[in-house]
Amino acid sequence: MENDAYRRLVQRFATIHDVNAATKTLDWYARTKAPKAAQTGLGCQIATLSKQAHELLVDLSCADDLADAEAREPWEAANLREMRRRHRLASVLPADLVEAQVRASTHAHLVWETAKPEGDFAAFLPALRGVLEHVSTGARIQGQALGLSPYDALLEGHDPGRRNAAVTSMFAELEAVLPGIVDGVRGGPKPPGPTGKKRKLKRVARRMMSMIGLPETHARLDTSSHPFTAGDSDNIRITTRYSGRPGEALMAVLHECGHALYIAGLPSAHLGQPVGAARGMTVHESQSLLIEMLVCRSRAFAVHYARLLRDEFGEDGAWDPNRLHEVLIHVEPGVTRVEADEVTYPLHVVVRHRCETALLNGTLDPADLSDAFDEAMDSLLGIRPRNPGEGCLQDPHWTLMRGWGYFPTYALGLLMAAQLYETLRAALPDLDVDLARGDFAPLAGWLREHVHGRGCFDSSSDALLEHATGRPLGTGAFLRHLERRYLPGMT
Amino acid sequence: MENDAYRRLVQRFATIHDVNAATKTLDWYARTKAPKAAQTGLGCQIATLSKQAHELLVDLSCADDLADAEAREPWEAANLREMRRRHRLASVLPADLVEAQVRASTHAHLVWETAKPEGDFAAFLPALRGVLEHVSTGARIQGQALGLSPYDALLEGHDPGRRNAAVTSMFAELEAVLPGIVDGVRGGPKPPGPTGKKRKLKRVARRMMSMIGLPETHARLDTSSHPFTAGDSDNIRITTRYSGRPGEALMAVLHECGHALYIAGLPSAHLGQPVGAARGMTVHESQSLLIEMLVCRSRAFAVHYARLLRDEFGEDGAWDPNRLHEVLIHVEPGVTRVEADEVTYPLHVVVRHRCETALLNGTLDPADLSDAFDEAMDSLLGIRPRNPGEGCLQDPHWTLMRGWGYFPTYALGLLMAAQLYETLRAALPDLDVDLARGDFAPLAGWLREHVHGRGCFDSSSDALLEHATGRPLGTGAFLRHLERRYLPGMT
Repeated sequence: MENDAYRRLVQRFATIHDVNAATKTLDWYARTKAPKAAQTGLGCQIATLSKQAHELLVDLSCADDLADAEAREPWEAANLREMRRRHRLASVLPADLVEAQVRASTHAHLVWETAKPEGDFAAFLPALRGVLEHVSTGARIQGQALGLSPYDALLEGHDPGRRNAAVTSMFAELEAVLPGIVDGVRGGPKPPGPTGKKRKLKRVARRMMSMIGLPETHARLDTSSHPFTAGDSDNIRITTRYSGRPGEALMAVLHECGHALYIAGLPSAHLGQPVGAARGMTVHESQSLLIEMLVCRSRAFAVHYARLLRDEFGEDGAWDPNRLHEVLIHVEPGVTRVEADEVTYPLHVVVRHRCETALLNGTLDPADLSDAFDEAMDSLLGIRPRNPGEGCLQDPHWTLMRGWGYFPTYALGLLMAAQLYETLRAALPDLDVDLARGDFAPLAGWLREHVHGRGCFDSSSDALLEHATGRPLGTGAFLRHLERRYLPGMT
Repeated sequence: MENDAYRRLVQRFATIHDVNAATKTLDWYARTKAPKAAQTGLGCQIATLSKQAHELLVDLSCADDLADAEAREPWEAANLREMRRRHRLASVLPADLVEAQVRASTHAHLVWETAKPEGDFAAFLPALRGVLEHVSTGARIQGQALGLSPYDALLEGHDPGRRNAAVTSMFAELEAVLPGIVDGVRGGPKPPGPTGKKRKLKRVARRMMSMIGLPETHARLDTSSHPFTAGDSDNIRITTRYSGRPGEALMAVLHECGHALYIAGLPSAHLGQPVGAARGMTVHESQSLLIEMLVCRSRAFAVHYARLLRDEFGEDGAWDPNRLHEVLIHVEPGVTRVEADEVTYPLHVVVRHRCETALLNGTLDPADLSDAFDEAMDSLLGIRPRNPGEGCLQDPHWTLMRGWGYFPTYALGLLMAAQLYETLRAALPDLDVDLARGDFAPLAGWLREHVHGRGCFDSSSDALLEHATGRPLGTGAFLRHLERRYLPGMT
């Protein structure tokens, strides 16, 4: 009867996947195409579908089948492990707590949307207290059930197996080294990057997507106020924004292409099953940062990038590859995380990690968050936000239940990207030649074999990384990469 | 406890509405924006959501609550009546029959998609037999449960309370009169209508939407291979196509605006509840045909239409209102239903009604459908399709389970539109002046009060129509309208 139980579970998780996929399409529609008046109704529909998916997951007959099912081969075993993990994480939270969390989060997000532009921390504070209280309660309950500390329980939801002790130790290494590197290579005010009309930038962006392996038959490009990627391998939606510096719109597309390439390369035989999904958010962020930061800011890719710009804009908008490369690897501390270069970026994350762990374990009162945030920015990056809108209100993460414990995945993702990059450069000796002519197939092939195509076969991102690079996650490859790219004279 | 049962039902039907609304967004996405490769996955997600909605509707605890619930006021009573109607219609069909129907229909639709352009009736025939068998079985089961004939059971699904005896009698009146009118007013080959670049036509279409009361904050306009409308009042999606005659793209927009205006005017206090939905498909089609055929082919509206065209295209693309009106009311039998004028249109429907009732009651073998179709076209419209692609394969309806018994609603909708138009013209003596300057507010206000805003408060479309016009549905107003518009010298 075990196989019957397993078959029923496969059917159940396929249904959950379909409901979640529909939710993602509604969210994409709300953020790109929907009439303004539609937002409330769409929010309601998304909440309904999420509740349906949650009920399918925590159902008693799901628990029974999970207890009875047995796997016949390793992918089934991995699938069953991931099913059990999802079920356990979802079932420990009481339904009324989840509802209260959603209410607190929805309220806080609305408050944040007006408090941020006005830099009004006092207005945000009560909402923050509300969210923090519900996050703490949920993390404590999940932690007790899983034998983890509350913050480790949050990390577990984003990057299974990741523990804060290891995160803190890696971040300490970065804190010790990065400020010195920044001081050595900082280049003053940001130089203007490539520029051009939206219509033409969009064409360059589309060519970049095809170049990376995301043709129009499988992937869309749209505009939204914050870039994001959503979908399955045959239905990929990338967005970017053209409101900032034009060159940033293209870098955002390259970043999202990294996420999209991961989605496109997930094991198609297991589409819709937990084992066919991405191996957590650290791996996901590693893939976007690998493409945007490591690969597409290389001297080799600058050659092809310059060619793409000349093709679209003619000699007027043309860039010399060397000067383009200088712009791409320009380093200068700034207040905004999402605009940071790869050297200062991890320090932005460390600031947030310090604050959210202190809030969670009660050593920082929410009332003192803004000062603590600015203090950390000053000590790590040497700049002070001019107001809370540039400071602790900068990101939406702390208004969202699933935003807590998420920040570390950005910096860990960058470390992981560097570690993968080091290994794949050794495996692909012609990589620079390929990149210089815009041929991403060898890179994408390597990533598919060693990362994308494994889905959730490995039980943690460290296990995946060890399989791909021979080592668990560390800071070594990232620091070696910075030396090679930014301090070439010193090696 | 009755009120608890009613409250639970309201919650359940709100959930069903949200799931169905998500399905409609997925369908809109598939038909307008989705990458080609996404179609299979989206089809699967739509099937999953439909199954979820169906299970929520036929659930045993839903049946218990429907038995226990009591209404406190007339709108609750109407809501409960509609809940019971939906539950009954859905529950009588065994789940495995529904699944077999979906399979037969999906298969037939695929076969039809290639058989139609090739005019290959023989290739389509086995698929047609499969669909017909499943439709017959379902209609027989539903009919037995509801005390109706199989064809009446199909009508009941589209226009509750509508019976084939009444349909046949109205159609007999049309058959007796329309061919003679057509012979008297036919105008030879279709004159070229307004023309212009897609970009500019789209701007005219957008202005038409705002004119009718569908601003961009609430309604989108997109392109698809067949025009359609989907959504709720705050989230309306209209599509048209620019592949045929340019003027047809605008008429299609006006047609869809009629559907959209109905959706926009449904009682917002009951959004998501059965009583807040449209009162069946005859009323829905009456609203699109009222706007497209009755209102927007009037001499009065031609004045404003000519102004819209001049605004966008300048003097080059300008039309004299009288000449424009002549084009709009041009009558000539053609083979294609969706391109037909309002005089020949009902005859196209009569052809299909004859065929599908004969197929259902077994007096026509599917092998003889193509000949029977052509024969009826010849006798009613005086033309013969050159091949089955122009004939019985013209429409997709007979590949779809819910397409059977649907055709009559088009012609009945036109009769209903004429009956409403006659009444509202009497109630709005300045209507022509309003239309000539593009002011649709008085018209929309009347429709909202007497049709749209009543939702499913009335138990049938005849009850609704009687409330609005004092009479149940008949052919009188339509025939008087044709005389007034097409035979003015004779009245």
